[in-house]
Amino acid sequence: MDEKKISLTVIKRLPKYYSFLGELLDMDIVRISSKKMSEKLKLNASQIRQDLNNFGSFGLQGYGYDVESLYREIGRILGLDKKYSMILIGAGNIGQALLNYEDFAKRGFAFKQIFDNSPAKIGTTIKGIPVTNINKMSDYLEENKTDIAVLTVPKVYSEQAIKILNDKNIRGIWNFTNKDIHYDGDVKVEDVHLMDSLMTLSYKINEKEIIERYREKQ
Amino acid sequence: MDEKKISLTVIKRLPKYYSFLGELLDMDIVRISSKKMSEKLKLNASQIRQDLNNFGSFGLQGYGYDVESLYREIGRILGLDKKYSMILIGAGNIGQALLNYEDFAKRGFAFKQIFDNSPAKIGTTIKGIPVTNINKMSDYLEENKTDIAVLTVPKVYSEQAIKILNDKNIRGIWNFTNKDIHYDGDVKVEDVHLMDSLMTLSYKINEKEIIERYREKQ
Repeated sequence: MDEKKISLTVIKRLPKYYSFLGELLDMDIVRISSKKMSEKLKLNASQIRQDLNNFGSFGLQGYGYDVESLYREIGRILGLDKKYSMILIGAGNIGQALLNYEDFAKRGFAFKQIFDNSPAKIGTTIKGIPVTNINKMSDYLEENKTDIAVLTVPKVYSEQAIKILNDKNIRGIWNFTNKDIHYDGDVKVEDVHLMDSLMTLSYKINEKEIIERYREKQ
Repeated sequence: MDEKKISLTVIKRLPKYYSFLGELLDMDIVRISSKKMSEKLKLNASQIRQDLNNFGSFGLQGYGYDVESLYREIGRILGLDKKYSMILIGAGNIGQALLNYEDFAKRGFAFKQIFDNSPAKIGTTIKGIPVTNINKMSDYLEENKTDIAVLTVPKVYSEQAIKILNDKNIRGIWNFTNKDIHYDGDVKVEDVHLMDSLMTLSYKINEKEIIERYREKQ
């Protein structure tokens, strides 16, 4: 493989493989063919093989994949062999929902601190994590190595929060605000745009009719 | 265009175009070139042109796109010229966060009823929407035409909820549970897998190192 990046479309399928292989492991299944995988995941078998070939050759002709080693290897590709410290910016409903996800900690993503501007929340803890005034965030980040900032503040506060994050040596932003973040420098951003996802669903439920309509126009 | 489906990768970019064009409209900008659009959205100009060409020819050589008509047209492609009635299954943190999103109603997606199994919540309203015992959901769906079920229950309850939804003539499920839903029949599913998104972020922040590692192995 040369140094060119792997396409994001491929990367976004890896978590599916990873979760699926994890479930197989839980059921003590030791090997699986790409054909079987493709049936279960409703993906093309040759696509699965191609995706995995980006990172080396894992399968054996006639044997298939060794579940445990493929699981471990995809985990490493996804960076899950490391630990990540996270801060949560915004202790609203979405933020609190994220604090409740046990899977994050299990996979090595640990919330260390919550920042909010609500006097009712500052000084309390949520799920054992302290809530601190957002005006202390800058100092906190100077003193505490933080990998990921999880941004769940309302749109109106997001610019302010991003300004504080700037130059603070974090590695990634997980962005739940409606605003796309275009960050200069090395910080990676992953957007969760719920409105976009809902629009995709509305396309899917209207697809037949929409395609029909545009076919007639041509 | 023949009857074959548009690739989901293309569809998933349409909401970005749509939101962007909406912002231009708010600023009274009447036309835009695909080049300018590509700079702002950090996408390839020819890709934008190709994506839109799937649905007809919208741009004019030398003029670019008319913002308002392209906005309206993409809205129609996404099915946003229609109204959708939704039920929320699960009034936990994620569910409540979704009830707070004003954009959904603005785009025609209206929550009509909430179902939960918590005695403390049943009989109350959240954001003006009544919370009803989940054991009445089946009857409700018989009597009320519902387009979309938004599924935010914990994993352990999701199978039960899906069983109730079955054969109830809903059109789509917006799935926030960790479980992939493989639905028979015509119901479309859009999954929001937060763990997958977080894994994608962890890949991104480790990308250089990961690619380097796999390059050395080959």
